[in-house]
Amino acid sequence: MESISSFAELIAHLKLLNNRKRIAVANAVDSHTLEAVLRASDSGFVEAFLIGDLAMIESPLFFEHKLTPYVHIIDIPEVEQATREAVRMVKSGEADILMKGLVNTDVILRAILDKENGIVEKGKIITYNAALEIPSYHKLLFFTDPAVIPSPTVEQRTAMIKYVTETAHKFGIARPKIALIHATEKANPKIQYMQDYLDIMDKWRMGEFGDVIMDGPLDIFLALDPERGSIKKVPSPIHGDADILVFPNFECANTFYKGLMVFAKAEMAGLLQGTQKPVVLTSRSESVNSKFYSLAMACVMG
Amino acid sequence: MESISSFAELIAHLKLLNNRKRIAVANAVDSHTLEAVLRASDSGFVEAFLIGDLAMIESPLFFEHKLTPYVHIIDIPEVEQATREAVRMVKSGEADILMKGLVNTDVILRAILDKENGIVEKGKIITYNAALEIPSYHKLLFFTDPAVIPSPTVEQRTAMIKYVTETAHKFGIARPKIALIHATEKANPKIQYMQDYLDIMDKWRMGEFGDVIMDGPLDIFLALDPERGSIKKVPSPIHGDADILVFPNFECANTFYKGLMVFAKAEMAGLLQGTQKPVVLTSRSESVNSKFYSLAMACVMG
Repeated sequence: MESISSFAELIAHLKLLNNRKRIAVANAVDSHTLEAVLRASDSGFVEAFLIGDLAMIESPLFFEHKLTPYVHIIDIPEVEQATREAVRMVKSGEADILMKGLVNTDVILRAILDKENGIVEKGKIITYNAALEIPSYHKLLFFTDPAVIPSPTVEQRTAMIKYVTETAHKFGIARPKIALIHATEKANPKIQYMQDYLDIMDKWRMGEFGDVIMDGPLDIFLALDPERGSIKKVPSPIHGDADILVFPNFECANTFYKGLMVFAKAEMAGLLQGTQKPVVLTSRSESVNSKFYSLAMACVMG
Repeated sequence: MESISSFAELIAHLKLLNNRKRIAVANAVDSHTLEAVLRASDSGFVEAFLIGDLAMIESPLFFEHKLTPYVHIIDIPEVEQATREAVRMVKSGEADILMKGLVNTDVILRAILDKENGIVEKGKIITYNAALEIPSYHKLLFFTDPAVIPSPTVEQRTAMIKYVTETAHKFGIARPKIALIHATEKANPKIQYMQDYLDIMDKWRMGEFGDVIMDGPLDIFLALDPERGSIKKVPSPIHGDADILVFPNFECANTFYKGLMVFAKAEMAGLLQGTQKPVVLTSRSESVNSKFYSLAMACVMG
């Protein structure tokens, strides 16, 4: 498999596979979610089960859209009940992927994490992975975690790196380059997470992360900009060509991607990690594109 | 005074003032520093004292440059001694501004912080302010702190906000809009610095920061993007039009600006804060532009 280096290539890859994944959407009534789901269905890689309060549907597009055999409606007016039904379908194998519609994040997380009826194995670390498409970067940039774990422990960070490496592999990146991000390349021992970074570098040298290239701490220039990086004269196997950024904390990941969405026309896709099946958990303010690409990412992962 | 909304306007403003500031440059031998200083001298707002090991000068430009009455050379081959001499000139009033050339940051910081011969009053909080020019933003964006204080205490953060507000005032921004940045607008009490943010909002309501508009926690969309911000339906007096970002920690500020420099053609200027006189402390990897604009920023502050 050739590596997927843009969202357009991701969509082309899924069209070529010609294999519809079944997706259960919890309260699919907001226009961004509906438009993303219908686009994925029209593109041939999704069969959708829209679960929720049909009377609330806010997208005119939806009613203009000729329903195909690949879009089904399950009318459950109560949001929490609709959410539980979507989770049940995924757990039972009736659907492959779970997607959040107009549901509060804590409501869907509660259903996902429910001991009896949820879709998380006991003890699994739950986190968030994302892929960023920046027009001025030559490939997709994966990163973790902008949303779920504020300050990861070394165990959490180890799990995060394994998840995001798996994601990169699913995108056909045989040997991803992983940068552990900090403000500089200097391993200042006063920084709270620095020992974790050094421990993770040791784990990498011992082979714990498989066939990946890893370096850190590195700053953004050394990770992503070969020119600015080389002025620093810090030799690194990453050399401004990272596939994956591991951020020190979630504010850092969050402000990084949002800054690039606002000012560098970046697009993002993201998935919850640690669940038994892929979960698309984009927030209400995210664009149709973000939801569509996140759904495509889930289809490549599932 | 009209507000300065770009680095071009900053330079135009200084040319118009026609008032040369005297600048002492510690070991001014690297080409980026020399080119920035000569450009500032040619632009008419700097009189430079280049202190260091002349034999090491690496800029061909320097030798082509016709030395004017506004560029003086003080040959001191030993770096630490040259640095101490530059600090002494600023302390004694023979120069108005200190600038770092090819000196390790810890060497110049030691000279600046020296109890006897330094230029920091006892008990002053030392931090770093910067201004970012992003082509796709309509004005300069000030922020704190990408480099010096890893995780500020509430006292440090209060001082940081006062410094950066003063900087915005010097740029003619009468009533700066200040956003306290987080991953979301929700004040999650589990986040270590959230109580500090709430305390700072209280201080603001009590008038401690003067005539500024403040809101937080806010994410980058709410602070800088009126469109994406309004999808969230979170009313904020900032409304995507922030002049100043206060970041939770220094990695966050650091990765934010570096990402925008690499992918959104942003330019940056920055100054150390808390010293008796302005200090230009750009790093070796920074561009001529960064050093030039930082020097211009020092001239407007001094």
